[in-house]
Amino acid sequence: MDQVIDFINTNRDRYIDELKSYLAIPSISAVPEHLDDVKRCAEWTEAEFTRIGLENVQLLSTPGNPVVYGDWLHADGAPTVLFYGHYDVQPVDPIGEWDSPPFEASVREGEIYARGAADDKGQIFMHFKAIEACLVTNQRLPINIKVIIEGEEEIGSRHLDEFVRERSHELGADVVLISDSPMFDRGVPSICCGLRGLAYCQIDLRGTKSDLHSGSFGGAVANPAFVLAQILNQMKDRSGRIKIPGFYDRVRELQDRDRAEWAKLPFNERRFKKELGAPKLFGEKGFTTLERLWGRPTFEVNGLNAGFTGEGAKTVIPATAMAKISMRLVPDQDPETIADSFESYAKKISPKTVELTVTQLHTGKPWTAASDGTFVAAASRAIEKGFGRKPVVNREGGSIPVVSTFQEILQVPTVLFGIGLPDENAHAPNEKLDLTNFHNGVISSAELYAEFGKLRA
Amino acid sequence: MDQVIDFINTNRDRYIDELKSYLAIPSISAVPEHLDDVKRCAEWTEAEFTRIGLENVQLLSTPGNPVVYGDWLHADGAPTVLFYGHYDVQPVDPIGEWDSPPFEASVREGEIYARGAADDKGQIFMHFKAIEACLVTNQRLPINIKVIIEGEEEIGSRHLDEFVRERSHELGADVVLISDSPMFDRGVPSICCGLRGLAYCQIDLRGTKSDLHSGSFGGAVANPAFVLAQILNQMKDRSGRIKIPGFYDRVRELQDRDRAEWAKLPFNERRFKKELGAPKLFGEKGFTTLERLWGRPTFEVNGLNAGFTGEGAKTVIPATAMAKISMRLVPDQDPETIADSFESYAKKISPKTVELTVTQLHTGKPWTAASDGTFVAAASRAIEKGFGRKPVVNREGGSIPVVSTFQEILQVPTVLFGIGLPDENAHAPNEKLDLTNFHNGVISSAELYAEFGKLRA
Repeated sequence: MDQVIDFINTNRDRYIDELKSYLAIPSISAVPEHLDDVKRCAEWTEAEFTRIGLENVQLLSTPGNPVVYGDWLHADGAPTVLFYGHYDVQPVDPIGEWDSPPFEASVREGEIYARGAADDKGQIFMHFKAIEACLVTNQRLPINIKVIIEGEEEIGSRHLDEFVRERSHELGADVVLISDSPMFDRGVPSICCGLRGLAYCQIDLRGTKSDLHSGSFGGAVANPAFVLAQILNQMKDRSGRIKIPGFYDRVRELQDRDRAEWAKLPFNERRFKKELGAPKLFGEKGFTTLERLWGRPTFEVNGLNAGFTGEGAKTVIPATAMAKISMRLVPDQDPETIADSFESYAKKISPKTVELTVTQLHTGKPWTAASDGTFVAAASRAIEKGFGRKPVVNREGGSIPVVSTFQEILQVPTVLFGIGLPDENAHAPNEKLDLTNFHNGVISSAELYAEFGKLRA
Repeated sequence: MDQVIDFINTNRDRYIDELKSYLAIPSISAVPEHLDDVKRCAEWTEAEFTRIGLENVQLLSTPGNPVVYGDWLHADGAPTVLFYGHYDVQPVDPIGEWDSPPFEASVREGEIYARGAADDKGQIFMHFKAIEACLVTNQRLPINIKVIIEGEEEIGSRHLDEFVRERSHELGADVVLISDSPMFDRGVPSICCGLRGLAYCQIDLRGTKSDLHSGSFGGAVANPAFVLAQILNQMKDRSGRIKIPGFYDRVRELQDRDRAEWAKLPFNERRFKKELGAPKLFGEKGFTTLERLWGRPTFEVNGLNAGFTGEGAKTVIPATAMAKISMRLVPDQDPETIADSFESYAKKISPKTVELTVTQLHTGKPWTAASDGTFVAAASRAIEKGFGRKPVVNREGGSIPVVSTFQEILQVPTVLFGIGLPDENAHAPNEKLDLTNFHNGVISSAELYAEFGKLRA
C-alpha cells in the first residue's frame, strides 16, 4: 500500500493537468447545443478507463446519453463495488459572474475553478487516479469493481432507472460507492448516511380568460395572484409547521442518538447565517438547524409567476398565477402519497372563483443508511488515513434519487463519500474544488479499496 | 345645424379613409424604436388641425413628446372648451394574437380594427371631424375651443402636469372635454362622472445573498416567496376587506341616490361573468358589482415573481421575491396617504427573516363630478340627439390622472364623453372601434358644441 501512496504523491501534478483536460469539455446535458460535447466527454471517459487499466471498457447506449462502463473483476473472494458517478455538468449561466472561463480550468489559492470541478468530474477523477495507482503499482486491485459513469445526472438521470433495472444482473455488487456530495466542512471529512426525498409539484390558477384592466374590473373578480397567496399561506403556519393533512403521519421521529451525534458536530450557526447572508435564520420550532436540514421535511416555494413582472407599473389583474412547490421528505414518508395529499388539499382549499390545476413534476424517495454498517466502518478507517482525521457521519438535506434506485433494484448498501465543500458552488458560477481535498481523496479512495478488500464478499 | 349634420352624413366614408391614415402611424410611446413614428404622428395631427380650420396650430415641446395645439376663439360670449386627448398608442404585444396587422386598419362587420382605434385616435378624430363640419359649413364654431393632444398618455402623461401648470393662463377655459373612455354598453351612451384613484407600489423581499439549493438549505432559512404570500395574505381578508390600518378612514360611503341610480342601469351580471370567463365573481360583501367597480376601493396583485418560473422542476430557494400591488381609491382617499399606510403596514408585518423594500411607483387621485351640472346636462342633450337615446350617467373603475390635474390647476369641471365599448380591447390585441358609434359620436360632438354654445361663459 505504501507504494500506491508513493505513486499518488509522485503523480500529484500530472493529475491536475489531466483533470484540466477533462474539465475543458463543456458536457452540459441540459443544453441541446452541447450534445456533441457530451458525446465527446463520454469518449474521453471511455479512453481514460482504458488508460487506467479497467477492462471490458465500453459505451453503453441509453435512449439518451451513453453510460461509460468498465470493470476489473479479478479479486477472488473480495467484495464487488459498483462505483457510480456522472460526466455531465450543469449549465454555466449567468456566465458574466464567472471570474475565469468555466471550461478553462484555472488554479487559484489551492482551488481549481471550472464547471464540473466538484460536481462531479473532480470527484470521479479522484477514483480514476486511485484505480490507476493500484493497477500500475500492484497490477491488481484489492476489490472487484464495476464503474458506471452516466451523462444525464444533471437532467434528472432520466434513463438510469431503466438502465439499472435492465442490467441488474450484470451490475450485481456487494456495495454501491458514490462520490458526488460535499464533505461536512473544510477539514471535516464525512460519510453521508442520509438523504431527504422529494415531491415537486406545480400549482396553476386561472381566474379569467385573459388579463384584465385592474381599474375597469378590480374589485368585481377574484385575483388569481392573490388567491395563490391565500392558498400558499394555508399550506404552512407561522411556526413553520406544514398544514397539509396527513403530511407528518409517516415521519420517523428523530432518534435521541442521532440528535446527540449531530449536536457534537463542529457546526457554526453564526458562520452559516453569515455565509448565506440571511438577516435571521428560520425553521420549525423545537429543532436545531442540522435537525431541520437532515431530519425534518420541508415545504418550499421554488418559483412564483403572475401578471406583470417588468419594470414600472402595469395595472393588470393577471388571468393566471403559478407556483412551483417542492417538499423535502424524510423516512418513512412516501413521495407519491405526499404529492397526492398536496394535490387533494390544494383542491380542497382553492375557492370556486378560480380554476386550479396541480401538476406532479418529480418525486424521489428519502434514504438512510446504518451509520454502523461494515462498509461505512471500513470507509471511515480509509478516510481517516487519507485526511488524517476520522470522518464524521452526516446527512444531506438534498436528494440523490439514484441511491434509492440502487437500494431497491440491487438491494445492497450504498456508501456516500464526498470531498466537495459546501461552498464550492456546484450549480453556481465559479464552481471549484480544493486540490488538497482532491489529493487526500485519491489516497482515501485507494485506502478505501484496501479496507473494502479486507471484508469478505 | 341641419347643414352641419348633412355634411357629416355626406362625408361618412371619407372619415373612415382618413382615420385609416391616422391609425397607420405606429405611435407607440413606450417603445423607444418608435420615437420617429411618435414624432410623425404629432406632425400628422398638426397638419390635420390646419386642414380642419383650427388656428394658432403648433407643436409645443415638452421634455418628452410634443403636445399638438390648435384653437378657434371667435365665439364672443360663448364658453371656452379645453379639449384634451392623446395621439400615442399602447404597444402591440402579443403581436401573434392580432387577426389583422395592428397598423393596417381593417373594417370587419362594422368595426374598424387597429391599435389606437378606440384609445384614443378614433375618439379624438371624431372631434376633429365635428370641428371641421362646423367650420366648413358655417365658417364658425358655436364655442371657443382650445385643443391639446399629447403624446405620452400611455406612459403616464409624464410631462403633462408640468405642461398644464406652466401654461395654465393660456389654457384657461370654462370646461374640459375628454373623449377617452368607454360608453356604458353597446346602445347605451353615457357620460362618465367618476373615476377611481390609484396607488401603485412594489414589494421586494430578499432572504439570502443568492438563490439556495432547496435540498441543502430547505427548512433552515426563511423562503422569501413564501413570506411574500404570508404578507399579501395579511393585506386582505377572505371577505375581500382590506386590512391595511386606516385604509377605509376617508372612504366616502356610497350615497343611496347613486346606489339607486346604478341599480337601474341595464347591467347584465351573467353576461359580464361570461365575457370575462370567470368561474364565479368575487367582491366585497354587501355591494353589487357596479358598486364594487365604481364606488369601492380595491387591493390587487398586478404581478408576482420569484425563483424558477420556467418549465419543469428546479429546486431553488429564491433569494428574492417581488409583488406589484395597486390599490384603486375612491373619494376622499388620498393616494399618497394610502401608499404610506401600505408601506408602514408591510414593514410592520414583514418578519425579521427577510429584508423588505417598498417602492411607491405611481399615484392618481379619485375624481367625481356632479351628475346634475350645467355642462353635463348640455352634453346629455347633445348625446341624445346623436345616439337617439338619453345617455346614462356612469362611472369608471379606472383612473385618468389628468382629470384631477385639470381640476386642480384650471379649477373647472370636466365632461367625459366616451364612445368606445367596454369590449373594444384597448391595451389588448384586436383593438377596434364600432363605426356606427363613431358616426353618432361625430354628430353628438357637433351637437355638444352647439349645446355648450347656448350656455354663457
